[in-house]
Amino acid sequence: MTSPALDESAPDTSTLVEQRDRAAADYATLVGRGLKLDLTRGKPSSAQLDLSNDLLALPGAGHAVVDGTDTRNYGGLLGLTGLRELFSAALQVPTAQLLAADNASLAVMHDCLVHAQLSVLPGAQRRWADEPKVKFLCPVPGYDRHFALCERFGIEMIQVPMTEDGPDMDVVERLVAADPAVKGIWCVPKYSNPDGVVYSDETARRLAAMPTAAPDFRIFWDNAYAVHHLTDEEVRIADLLALCAEHGNPDRAFVFGSTSKITFAGSGVSFFGSSEANVAWYLKNTAMRTIGPDKVNQLRHLMFLRDEDGLREHMRRHRELLRPKFDAVDRILTEQLDGTGLASWSKPRGGYFVSLDVPAGCAKEVVRRAAEAGIALTPAGATHPHGQDPEDRTIRIGPTFPDLADVELAMAGLATCVRLVGYERLLGEGAR
Amino acid sequence: MTSPALDESAPDTSTLVEQRDRAAADYATLVGRGLKLDLTRGKPSSAQLDLSNDLLALPGAGHAVVDGTDTRNYGGLLGLTGLRELFSAALQVPTAQLLAADNASLAVMHDCLVHAQLSVLPGAQRRWADEPKVKFLCPVPGYDRHFALCERFGIEMIQVPMTEDGPDMDVVERLVAADPAVKGIWCVPKYSNPDGVVYSDETARRLAAMPTAAPDFRIFWDNAYAVHHLTDEEVRIADLLALCAEHGNPDRAFVFGSTSKITFAGSGVSFFGSSEANVAWYLKNTAMRTIGPDKVNQLRHLMFLRDEDGLREHMRRHRELLRPKFDAVDRILTEQLDGTGLASWSKPRGGYFVSLDVPAGCAKEVVRRAAEAGIALTPAGATHPHGQDPEDRTIRIGPTFPDLADVELAMAGLATCVRLVGYERLLGEGAR
Repeated sequence: MTSPALDESAPDTSTLVEQRDRAAADYATLVGRGLKLDLTRGKPSSAQLDLSNDLLALPGAGHAVVDGTDTRNYGGLLGLTGLRELFSAALQVPTAQLLAADNASLAVMHDCLVHAQLSVLPGAQRRWADEPKVKFLCPVPGYDRHFALCERFGIEMIQVPMTEDGPDMDVVERLVAADPAVKGIWCVPKYSNPDGVVYSDETARRLAAMPTAAPDFRIFWDNAYAVHHLTDEEVRIADLLALCAEHGNPDRAFVFGSTSKITFAGSGVSFFGSSEANVAWYLKNTAMRTIGPDKVNQLRHLMFLRDEDGLREHMRRHRELLRPKFDAVDRILTEQLDGTGLASWSKPRGGYFVSLDVPAGCAKEVVRRAAEAGIALTPAGATHPHGQDPEDRTIRIGPTFPDLADVELAMAGLATCVRLVGYERLLGEGAR
Repeated sequence: MTSPALDESAPDTSTLVEQRDRAAADYATLVGRGLKLDLTRGKPSSAQLDLSNDLLALPGAGHAVVDGTDTRNYGGLLGLTGLRELFSAALQVPTAQLLAADNASLAVMHDCLVHAQLSVLPGAQRRWADEPKVKFLCPVPGYDRHFALCERFGIEMIQVPMTEDGPDMDVVERLVAADPAVKGIWCVPKYSNPDGVVYSDETARRLAAMPTAAPDFRIFWDNAYAVHHLTDEEVRIADLLALCAEHGNPDRAFVFGSTSKITFAGSGVSFFGSSEANVAWYLKNTAMRTIGPDKVNQLRHLMFLRDEDGLREHMRRHRELLRPKFDAVDRILTEQLDGTGLASWSKPRGGYFVSLDVPAGCAKEVVRRAAEAGIALTPAGATHPHGQDPEDRTIRIGPTFPDLADVELAMAGLATCVRLVGYERLLGEGAR
């Protein structure tokens, strides 16, 4: 995916006027239809949730004790061993270093930041609350909720451009080597949000091996889409935790995962994996907050997913529902925008999003026009820290929640908006 | 309950020696039995958990949408309306100001402290993180996990003695009026942990009305045992939230509750109630951490408990299981220690604990001797900040988890330890 750049010299004005007029007519028709469609967030559809409906009656009467643990009672801060075993391979974390928690991996990330503020991390000289400044590297485009956590904790965000192989590692290595205030980096290493990038093995190796000025630098490795394939290829990424240990930085990686997009988005199980020292640090601090996670829900998940084959089979059923929607996004964007020079977009092999790049300065206007036509999109800029995309270029498309017909309608409408705003801009119109 | 004070002049030495020898013989027999009993924590028993086993198969296949909300998906940060309605009366919070959250009210309290550190509370001049010092009043004896949260957030704890009507309000009023660093007080207003005290209406009124030097003073009202009656009397406490509003301090109360000791201790639902302004503040901050609580579990609870009558009936079944254990505690302590001058204890009308006071300087030794005899007790001192009971007097008894026969065995053993340590001390022996 290379970003489109308006070549203002190319088409002659009368052609442009014609194209703009056609787009404007299409847009008027679109507005007239009074659509109400939503491509904003990465929510599973009802049909996807139905795949896990067996959970609604599990674990079933009389099934509450497993391996001598009464899941109904207090305790068990590590989570249910069987479920940790089941997700160990997918998340590339040894069971002993993998914790199963409650329904939101975002909460685990949040709490890691709380704990780092208040309790000295393994290898750290002091608590982050006592640092004059804490900075995080934020590969862009990225995930708005990661950025919101940085804002929440007063962490300064430094943007790093993404490449086809993950964040630009030359930039990353330079920044972490130079500044001890740089304490972390956000990574969605597989099918990244929103551009579907898969980190190369070399990117992972360099992340694990690079010298950092901060002794307590942490990689927030949000492996949210570990098993969320859209193609026959089950993409593998490098084992970051092992690489960090190999390169003498065993405590560098925090691994996060969840079943939010495997079972029920609101009622899944989240995971935290790291080195033994980090896990002990996390447990010690989390023990202040809770006596244990919802183990009955973990048992429910274990009984439902069963084992790695069960998980793989289940994700295949998700793929059957998702693949046609992602295909529709690509097909409609290709039909309507290919060759216009007005757009480029990602073709993800997994995950939940398509990233659409429009000419610089046009993203906000496209989103505004789409909203006027009843098509809700994630706010332009959400893919960047503080909601500010400096080039105003990137739009995140979440096609999972609406049904296929609505995805098609919404994408055709969105393409119309891109044409309208793009041609207006080429004609020097419509700037706001 | 008045504390025992050794009257060293009373019995003559030969009587004491005889009593000490009898206690020592009983203790030797006790140790010889090789017991392994646990009265440490307020955990429900398996039989209590069985009362809620219907939850294990709820909500049941095909039951996931309620009032148009798909409980399986993301969202719904306030929690399920029906469940909030159901608990509104018990927790004395209007539904609109009551949130249903995940499985641990401790986590909600923790997060309130995180949020207060990082985000200016309604009425506050600055974040607590920017205060030179934050102090909380801690009525003693109290709950160790409350005190641990204060330690966690660097909050200085000031002990306030408990009376039969709640914390000594003369002391409380003086402290909060004098020092703007005093930002909060921990309260378990009904069947308090560990001494079973019920706050009087006058205590609640004074808490609501008292002038505080801190504009952002908060009452952490942990109504953990709101419906956990042990007698026919369903004890009512004053409506703190309403009283605070009446007295012009609408934002003063944070109300916490949970079903941990109603349904499953590890898989229940917690609640947070407060003023509209506080609830908005809490939601805004919690939205950074999670997209919503486990609504399927909330639906499960709503279907199981049904309504206020269902809740009342369910709690009656708990009482049938718990009452014999609390009766046994009182009966055995009375049989073995009444009239000895060595002990006094609470006779709670609800809740999960009995508080046993032994002569000053003896609690640690009693707990140590009990442990040697295979009877695990909450560490002496746990009822006080930093685990330090300045008088080394209070022992918390949690009789809910073991079965009745074990409670009887453990209590008889504990009484033996109290006699042994008490008489040794009267004879000037056994000090360590």
